Amino acid sequence: MNKGEQLYEGKAKKVYATDDPSLVVVSYKDDATAFNGEKTGTIVGKGVINNRMTNMMMQLLEENGIPTHFVEELSERETVVKHVEIVPLETIIRNVSAGSFAKRYGVEEGIEFAEPTFEFSYKDDDLGDPLLNDDHAFALGLATRAEIDQLRTYTLKVNEVLSEYFRTLGIRLVDFKVEYGRLPDGTIILADEISPDTCRFWDLETGEKLDKDRFRRDLGGVEEAYEEIMNRLESNR
Amino acid sequence: MNKGEQLYEGKAKKVYATDDPSLVVVSYKDDATAFNGEKTGTIVGKGVINNRMTNMMMQLLEENGIPTHFVEELSERETVVKHVEIVPLETIIRNVSAGSFAKRYGVEEGIEFAEPTFEFSYKDDDLGDPLLNDDHAFALGLATRAEIDQLRTYTLKVNEVLSEYFRTLGIRLVDFKVEYGRLPDGTIILADEISPDTCRFWDLETGEKLDKDRFRRDLGGVEEAYEEIMNRLESNR
Repeated sequence: MNKGEQLYEGKAKKVYATDDPSLVVVSYKDDATAFNGEKTGTIVGKGVINNRMTNMMMQLLEENGIPTHFVEELSERETVVKHVEIVPLETIIRNVSAGSFAKRYGVEEGIEFAEPTFEFSYKDDDLGDPLLNDDHAFALGLATRAEIDQLRTYTLKVNEVLSEYFRTLGIRLVDFKVEYGRLPDGTIILADEISPDTCRFWDLETGEKLDKDRFRRDLGGVEEAYEEIMNRLESNR
Repeated sequence: MNKGEQLYEGKAKKVYATDDPSLVVVSYKDDATAFNGEKTGTIVGKGVINNRMTNMMMQLLEENGIPTHFVEELSERETVVKHVEIVPLETIIRNVSAGSFAKRYGVEEGIEFAEPTFEFSYKDDDLGDPLLNDDHAFALGLATRAEIDQLRTYTLKVNEVLSEYFRTLGIRLVDFKVEYGRLPDGTIILADEISPDTCRFWDLETGEKLDKDRFRRDLGGVEEAYEEIMNRLESNR
């Protein structure tokens, strides 16, 4: 697999072409951003951890019936994935109130919901990734009704699998964001990272935050939190 | 029916007790506010028009199977309605892009949707009435799942009835907001006004705005727009 020209550089990843048009290489950076790019920094070693962890999680999800873009880990920061057209909807599951939910609706963090709470946001940096509902997503032509249902079904299943898995590591999956892509034939597959950048992880015993909130909120111990999650994952293999 | 003590004063209405605890009197004011109270003013004669128009629409909706709080028009500004506990969800239908939808998602006004677009917002002035989806409403304990479904079903029916009715008056119902209340036995009924304060009305031929956007956007001819709608309603009786 030859890494070709850079196709895209995002906040935390670069994407490169390969000699196969159906495949691209994702390269994970140590760069960190928060609040729609207003805060920037570096989390040393993050790219290596997020690459490794994402690939472990993608394989776990594939085993549980979720189709993903994962193909092959190339190096400690680089992975071959299927080339997709990204669906411009961020899909979010919240098991416990935190972050923008708590702020938007004026409730405290840490309220456990009776059922997983699903939400979409419109993946558009200029608009600030605004919240939207199914009807909005359909009205804006971002996805078909069938795709919207598929995204919800897959994401609820991802939540079920990941929540259970992290529970065995002594970690509560508070919430997470994932994105999906369309293959040329229209098939929807999971096409994102699963990492402390995109999930909130709280230690089950102590409630300690083991995710990017340590960076967002200047809590210190950022690198250590990422390493702690990775150590628990590795020790479980 | 004796009007008793004032129970509540809102932006556009006052509510009074009566000697029957199951009934209250709503009194419509000429006061106008916009942008969550940031802009204030007076629209002379608005209270009279909104009272009369709301009562006509409530009767039309009752005839079409929507239970409402309407009981009896007392005077040109005052109406007896059933006393309810308001469900803290604003229910909105959009047939055409406009207002906060167009702004939030970066699209122009005037795009006709293939299907009516339903949305909830959380009725909380301090939070700025934030958008929420079904799962959020349930997680926050604002309504049960059955109530959420009921609110959607009723509001889609309200849209059907009102869209058809206004079309016969040469008016396009662009979007509207309604609220519901719970009777002591838990029954959900429509409990709001239906007026140029709460609906966007565009002339079918010219596209002229005949609603509160004339006030919000300083377009002039505010009173005339309210009167125009009322004249068309009266001439249709």
